[in-house]
Amino acid sequence: MRVSVLLGARDLVVEERPDPVPGPHEVLVRVASVGVCGSDVHYFEHGRIGSHVVDSPLVLGHEASGEVVGVGSSVTRLSLGQRVSVEPGVPDFTCSQCLAGRYNLCETMRFYATPPIDGAFAELVTVHEQFAHPVPDRMTDDAAALLEPLSVGLWACRKGGVQAGSRVLVTGAGPVGLVAMQAALALGAASVVVTDVNPHRLALARELGATDALDVDATPVSESGLAVDVLLECSGHPGATADALGAVAPAGTVVLVGMGGDEMTLPVSRIQERELTVTGTFRYAHTWPAAIALAASGRVQLDRLVTGHYGLDRVAEALSVGRADVHAVKPVVRPGS
Amino acid sequence: MRVSVLLGARDLVVEERPDPVPGPHEVLVRVASVGVCGSDVHYFEHGRIGSHVVDSPLVLGHEASGEVVGVGSSVTRLSLGQRVSVEPGVPDFTCSQCLAGRYNLCETMRFYATPPIDGAFAELVTVHEQFAHPVPDRMTDDAAALLEPLSVGLWACRKGGVQAGSRVLVTGAGPVGLVAMQAALALGAASVVVTDVNPHRLALARELGATDALDVDATPVSESGLAVDVLLECSGHPGATADALGAVAPAGTVVLVGMGGDEMTLPVSRIQERELTVTGTFRYAHTWPAAIALAASGRVQLDRLVTGHYGLDRVAEALSVGRADVHAVKPVVRPGS
Amino acid sequence: MRVSVLLGARDLVVEERPDPVPGPHEVLVRVASVGVCGSDVHYFEHGRIGSHVVDSPLVLGHEASGEVVGVGSSVTRLSLGQRVSVEPGVPDFTCSQCLAGRYNLCETMRFYATPPIDGAFAELVTVHEQFAHPVPDRMTDDAAALLEPLSVGLWACRKGGVQAGSRVLVTGAGPVGLVAMQAALALGAASVVVTDVNPHRLALARELGATDALDVDATPVSESGLAVDVLLECSGHPGATADALGAVAPAGTVVLVGMGGDEMTLPVSRIQERELTVTGTFRYAHTWPAAIALAASGRVQLDRLVTGHYGLDRVAEALSVGRADVHAVKPVVRPGS
Amino acid sequence: MRVSVLLGARDLVVEERPDPVPGPHEVLVRVASVGVCGSDVHYFEHGRIGSHVVDSPLVLGHEASGEVVGVGSSVTRLSLGQRVSVEPGVPDFTCSQCLAGRYNLCETMRFYATPPIDGAFAELVTVHEQFAHPVPDRMTDDAAALLEPLSVGLWACRKGGVQAGSRVLVTGAGPVGLVAMQAALALGAASVVVTDVNPHRLALARELGATDALDVDATPVSESGLAVDVLLECSGHPGATADALGAVAPAGTVVLVGMGGDEMTLPVSRIQERELTVTGTFRYAHTWPAAIALAASGRVQLDRLVTGHYGLDRVAEALSVGRADVHAVKPVVRPGS
Repeated sequence: MRVSVLLGARDLVVEERPDPVPGPHEVLVRVASVGVCGSDVHYFEHGRIGSHVVDSPLVLGHEASGEVVGVGSSVTRLSLGQRVSVEPGVPDFTCSQCLAGRYNLCETMRFYATPPIDGAFAELVTVHEQFAHPVPDRMTDDAAALLEPLSVGLWACRKGGVQAGSRVLVTGAGPVGLVAMQAALALGAASVVVTDVNPHRLALARELGATDALDVDATPVSESGLAVDVLLECSGHPGATADALGAVAPAGTVVLVGMGGDEMTLPVSRIQERELTVTGTFRYAHTWPAAIALAASGRVQLDRLVTGHYGLDRVAEALSVGRADVHAVKPVVRPGS
Repeated sequence: MRVSVLLGARDLVVEERPDPVPGPHEVLVRVASVGVCGSDVHYFEHGRIGSHVVDSPLVLGHEASGEVVGVGSSVTRLSLGQRVSVEPGVPDFTCSQCLAGRYNLCETMRFYATPPIDGAFAELVTVHEQFAHPVPDRMTDDAAALLEPLSVGLWACRKGGVQAGSRVLVTGAGPVGLVAMQAALALGAASVVVTDVNPHRLALARELGATDALDVDATPVSESGLAVDVLLECSGHPGATADALGAVAPAGTVVLVGMGGDEMTLPVSRIQERELTVTGTFRYAHTWPAAIALAASGRVQLDRLVTGHYGLDRVAEALSVGRADVHAVKPVVRPGS
Repeated sequence: MRVSVLLGARDLVVEERPDPVPGPHEVLVRVASVGVCGSDVHYFEHGRIGSHVVDSPLVLGHEASGEVVGVGSSVTRLSLGQRVSVEPGVPDFTCSQCLAGRYNLCETMRFYATPPIDGAFAELVTVHEQFAHPVPDRMTDDAAALLEPLSVGLWACRKGGVQAGSRVLVTGAGPVGLVAMQAALALGAASVVVTDVNPHRLALARELGATDALDVDATPVSESGLAVDVLLECSGHPGATADALGAVAPAGTVVLVGMGGDEMTLPVSRIQERELTVTGTFRYAHTWPAAIALAASGRVQLDRLVTGHYGLDRVAEALSVGRADVHAVKPVVRPGS
Repeated sequence: MRVSVLLGARDLVVEERPDPVPGPHEVLVRVASVGVCGSDVHYFEHGRIGSHVVDSPLVLGHEASGEVVGVGSSVTRLSLGQRVSVEPGVPDFTCSQCLAGRYNLCETMRFYATPPIDGAFAELVTVHEQFAHPVPDRMTDDAAALLEPLSVGLWACRKGGVQAGSRVLVTGAGPVGLVAMQAALALGAASVVVTDVNPHRLALARELGATDALDVDATPVSESGLAVDVLLECSGHPGATADALGAVAPAGTVVLVGMGGDEMTLPVSRIQERELTVTGTFRYAHTWPAAIALAASGRVQLDRLVTGHYGLDRVAEALSVGRADVHAVKPVVRPGS
């Protein structure tokens, strides 16, 4: 099979590798679509993310869909021809975190495109059958791939306790912010205001249903008079976070989704006086069934986020377009094209 | 003002009464629309509901909207001209249940149209300012009145833990079942199947978004192969309940919304083996903000439920049409017309 | 090794079997103590429990402690000589219920002494390393075995939402009732009243800390004036359940722990008006760490429940003493003695 | 009656005032014991706490017990002679936070000893009947007063989700840390480690049941190898907080109880990767029933914290002893002595 391999910062090659062989509980998936994530871009540009270093060849890509073209000997839940969305992290199933239902916190998780585990910019991948989720016919390959970022948004909503009637603020209208916003509305949020400084993304937020979209270059949240129950921080920007935190009403929740620096100065006396809850997200757990239902029914729109398709030969371009084109939101790699 | 008064079973008169005077924390509301509820019908037909007996003249109607036309001396949250939806039960605010946030369980609750508290089939009513909820201009008077049954449906969803991805079964496609179904979808349910034996109501359920609508005269739930996480029982029918309970998957929840008899035989070994949770709803609490948002945004459709309008002189007709006309869903009384 | 085998109702023999060999993730445990549970007695007396039929030889016993005397090739968490308490049900780890953290509802659970899985009335058993829980030196073998019924009691408390300040009623002062009562106190319950008709058990309940112990032959709960937040029903007796249900205050919870018949008539209008929650328990999940801590610190007393020790040759006697001796609470089998 | 009045920083006088008259829903309480809190000390030393300025004479003291010696016209729950513990903050009962069950976040809360509301260093006080909690005869006046700080500790445990089996770290062994520690054990915590730099307080922590007491001058938490599920931060010290945060295991919770500065630098990437929850406490809600039960049964020891008694004439001394005497833990003012 053909794969796109990252050898080091900005050093991508396409090479032939033997087809992977599924283990007893795994399926073999012919990859249809793979969304490009900010983490892929970061590995491509820097050859590392924090302590995760690309010190041997690595296949990027972890937002994948495709079709089952092989099954391991013990597979019972899937069969050949099934279209699936791939959940890219498989835990050990037996540690305390897994048993507690928090498999995203499994310490021996094997996650696509995180050294040394290869990802999905490849014609074929294998995955545990329980992590290859069947999708309905009416869902596109792209949407099936983008269930992964939607899962990030859904997980943020769950950690934030978004429920019917919640007033929500989403800071950052990148792909994650745009799906978090849609997810919040699909969970019954009374209002979801989105902030950014990119007018194109603000316009897209409005088109996708945001109650309001605020250009914080012009009007910081602190000057907007906004009061919310939940802040889904998707920018990773300390200034934006500090600005937005003041809008969180007593008993509200702050979910740090965007990756910023290691440390941040937070207004602890406000956290205390208002009994705010501050938490963060690390991937997601148990999100695919909901993601599939919301996307399949049109309550969340994923295809609208796709701004370009790229073959395996053009992965470097897919990983660069976000810096080059202010209109780019979600490039998608199609290994089979 | 003019009011419709129930003197005893099937004995309704319209009479003139002095305009009510709002207390310090109350507002005076000129009533626009009042939905007819099954409990109104029951009082009309039998002069009682269980131990609640109409032993002195009683004004029925508790699903009301209108406009603020007077404010008490201490009112701070509302002003003249504000269109509001009336939450018809006002608790004592200071008992243990109220302090715990469960004001619907307040033992000294004063609830419209429950003897001896008068309801809203009247030109004017008073209500505590905190229980008169402002509604946006784009919401009709009828929809503002029907936020009350929507609240019943939302509360059922909350007690049932309906969340993104839930598989839901609603038994009974009456007004409550139809709003419970819509509420479940608006909270992100993956699927909501509705059952009834009235083909007209099943068709309406489908039009309003039900994933499926099942005529249980033809196919009982037990023969449908259905498996759900949450059962919202809105029929009050013991046979329907027993039939539906078998479809609830392990760790699922059963919410008894419909009023049936005092006792019911339940499959306790199944409740134990599957660790099901069985609970019931008594009115609702904290539902109006969510109800307003969902109805105002079109995520829940309330006007579609209205099947007729009646003036104060025709309240008896409004209370009888449900028995007479299989197409009747929700008659609305307009005291001002 | 020597094992006690049930061939059919009241037909027990001791036989020699080859020592079991632990799988890669399993440990081999030399059994020290095994508590006798009501389900063991039921299998012994009737050769079945409901649809679970002893149609081939079965080793009973599932409340076990012992010492690790062998480890599988992949075991990392335990080593030889470790004293452990055995959690007797091992799930498949990968089904939806397991992933959700509810491994007790795993449909392919392998549970000791449930046909066709052998139990612990044997000199040696194997168990997955994650289900062999290390216990501190100061805990006796008997107490380590009785962490299993304590887990039943703790799980009942969790399902019932017992918390600091809860008013709790435990119906039935058998072994499970006595540990549920202690567990509730150890979780901060304000009061825990225990009911039974056996004066000896009521006295033991008082000795172990019950706020009150009520002989319901003399004074039914319904005549006691009691009001509670949580009912832990440990008798399995329909009459006792009905009598106790009336004492549950609005928003309270009923946990059906005791096994009675398949069906029970429940007061659904009361469940609705008071918004009670009724649920049941099926085994337990995630209870051992808490059980170990509470028993090791003396907050729960387990050794006080033991009323006799029996070797493998006297298992039939251990399984019969409960019927014969009103003072018997928890017989313990010691396979090595 | 005689009261101790703070006129400004370090300016206390005893004066005669007319006896207060209870409102319709209030009771009049003859004050028996009043614990001295750090906030009283801060007002005494600085004449302010942040934006709360003592710009008119203020009576300090908010940890009070006493006896009902007068009842308002509408009081139904209490009668003369009843010994009570006073919950010192009375909310407006009708705002959104109150209705939601979070009365501690009521924006118009009237809280003892917070300008301009007078406190309890007085012979008589009035309080809403629902906030005067009956205590059993066996509870001392001092313990009844110290239910207030115990409530702080219990609330911290609730916000932290302390439950049976939790591993807990309490930083700071002052009065709040010592009751938080005891509360955690009374809720079933598996272990509760307490840190401080005062050896006397560490010894007291051990005597009161701490699993371990760590002198962080000698061994910082970060060098201790400790891993916990819940951190109850009761020191208000940024360095201690940062040191302790690293010990919080994935999915754990950090509760900021101690008041430090307005801002603090927090390790957000760790919060994200471990999905930690960080929150704070603002007073408490619904804690008295549990506090009474735990203290009355001896599961929490409050009298052990009292290190001196002072009459109204010696309030300045009571407010100063904490700085002067390293052995002082909780001075108690007895207005009637």
